[in-house]
Amino acid sequence: MVFNEWVMFGFSHFFGDIYDIIISRGEIVTRIVVNVPEKVVPGRPRMEEYIKRLAHHIDVVPIEEFKRGPAEKYVIGFTRKAMEPLVDRLKTEHGISFHTLIHDKAIVQCGALYREGVVLDAGVIIGPWSRVGKHVVMSRGSSIGHDAVVGDYAFLGAGAVLCGHVRLGENVLVGANATVIPDVTVGDDVVIAAGAVVTKDVPSGTMVAGVPAQVKKLIKK
Amino acid sequence: MVFNEWVMFGFSHFFGDIYDIIISRGEIVTRIVVNVPEKVVPGRPRMEEYIKRLAHHIDVVPIEEFKRGPAEKYVIGFTRKAMEPLVDRLKTEHGISFHTLIHDKAIVQCGALYREGVVLDAGVIIGPWSRVGKHVVMSRGSSIGHDAVVGDYAFLGAGAVLCGHVRLGENVLVGANATVIPDVTVGDDVVIAAGAVVTKDVPSGTMVAGVPAQVKKLIKK
Amino acid sequence: MVFNEWVMFGFSHFFGDIYDIIISRGEIVTRIVVNVPEKVVPGRPRMEEYIKRLAHHIDVVPIEEFKRGPAEKYVIGFTRKAMEPLVDRLKTEHGISFHTLIHDKAIVQCGALYREGVVLDAGVIIGPWSRVGKHVVMSRGSSIGHDAVVGDYAFLGAGAVLCGHVRLGENVLVGANATVIPDVTVGDDVVIAAGAVVTKDVPSGTMVAGVPAQVKKLIKK
Repeated sequence: MVFNEWVMFGFSHFFGDIYDIIISRGEIVTRIVVNVPEKVVPGRPRMEEYIKRLAHHIDVVPIEEFKRGPAEKYVIGFTRKAMEPLVDRLKTEHGISFHTLIHDKAIVQCGALYREGVVLDAGVIIGPWSRVGKHVVMSRGSSIGHDAVVGDYAFLGAGAVLCGHVRLGENVLVGANATVIPDVTVGDDVVIAAGAVVTKDVPSGTMVAGVPAQVKKLIKK
Repeated sequence: MVFNEWVMFGFSHFFGDIYDIIISRGEIVTRIVVNVPEKVVPGRPRMEEYIKRLAHHIDVVPIEEFKRGPAEKYVIGFTRKAMEPLVDRLKTEHGISFHTLIHDKAIVQCGALYREGVVLDAGVIIGPWSRVGKHVVMSRGSSIGHDAVVGDYAFLGAGAVLCGHVRLGENVLVGANATVIPDVTVGDDVVIAAGAVVTKDVPSGTMVAGVPAQVKKLIKK
Repeated sequence: MVFNEWVMFGFSHFFGDIYDIIISRGEIVTRIVVNVPEKVVPGRPRMEEYIKRLAHHIDVVPIEEFKRGPAEKYVIGFTRKAMEPLVDRLKTEHGISFHTLIHDKAIVQCGALYREGVVLDAGVIIGPWSRVGKHVVMSRGSSIGHDAVVGDYAFLGAGAVLCGHVRLGENVLVGANATVIPDVTVGDDVVIAAGAVVTKDVPSGTMVAGVPAQVKKLIKK
């Protein structure tokens, strides 16, 4: 099976395990299981090179739905806000649209929804009825409770916990092992430091840290 | 397969994924695997409605032991201390007894035991030879080390860690991402704040917070 | 199938679940899946007794590769630095060499490597391209990001997170739920307290604690 025009784009370190990926070509939306063999990535190549390499070497195991349509040109990808120009270029120049990259060991519980470009690494859990915006990246073992809302381009570090009913604005970075307790609202363009425990609402454009978290500085846009 | 009198009771947000549930009807104790299809819970219904809905729509896949006995009237449930009156009512008025609700991705290691009404969410790990009391709820990714003892009605928030040989009294709430280091004893009716690191014994009826955790206030019974 | 000379050595509390174990006898290197039935460990026996018991009772389910060679004398084990004398004795007196003990629910991502004697408990994740030294023990749910380097004899407590590009020296203890942010270098013989958030380099022979972590005392060798 040849994927001449198959393109994958994303953080290089997410490749390699088995992912359940939602892809599309025009109207055809389908899912495949991708298993990148280790020999494809012997060193630590740059992202640019990945696209080339993967197009030729990737081991693609189609699942049932996959069999229904042609697969000559597929696109998989994700990004963060800072990468929007590149995303746009890929979209306009190569006709690439971005979909989700969900690790085989990530769990999305009942009623939870996420938008395009979401990346869920191993051990991630999204609780029931939560809503996750586009291009959100969740690292190893991070989790979201029930009825939470996470804005576009959020990044959750490894082990970060958003409790139930938390609301996160756009472009929020949550550091590794940080915690946001239930019902807290966090504004846009916020950085929550690693290990911080957020116990009250956080205004937009701030960086918070500590236990309990305090505003440490303002973030210029 | 019809479950006219089948009743499920619990925190609504635990439904939806696949759980391995231990149920009983009189002398017959058996296990089933329950898979609640998403269409059953399209919105966010109240708990009362769940009981009705699930009785008609739940998708029950019996495993081997299940085949041994009739299954017309089954009960699954769990609760916390504050819900005891409701539990009692269900028991006396409806003949409902409470059993365990264990997520498919929870792990109970060798020699560990737990009592009735325990709820283990996705990613939970109970270490070897630990003892977990009745109606204990463990949220996403929380874990207990080896040889620990957890009293009845404890609630462990997402990512909370109890290390080896920790002893927890009754009705203890452990906040998200909180940590209790090895060999510490925590009394009854204690609240450990999110992200707290408990490094020494905690007296009953107190709330502790911080790194390391300090007593912040007394809790009235 | 009899394993008269089969020997297992390790922390007793790691036994019981299913592990994927790499073993060797001379040139023959193979993998087996070991499932220790609960009845073998009814109480809490000492490690010495384990070796005897396991030799007779362990339930060994061979996988494909296993069928290729004889299996009369296998050795599985792991240790920490303080246990080196015992390791040496087992090596010289019994011809035992040490291999890895990897829980069925641990994840090693693409390009990651580890050396002999590594123990990965349930829920552990090692990120892409990381290097983990010999006899490193990772507890429940601890994780390492991409491109990290972890020296020999490190111990990671439950829920501990090492972010991407972290470098850890030899004989480092990382407490439960502690965090080391990206690109930090930690020296040899360091203790990082539970829940600590390490935001800058840590000199060898120190104990650090707090959020952010500060040097609290020196450790005598």
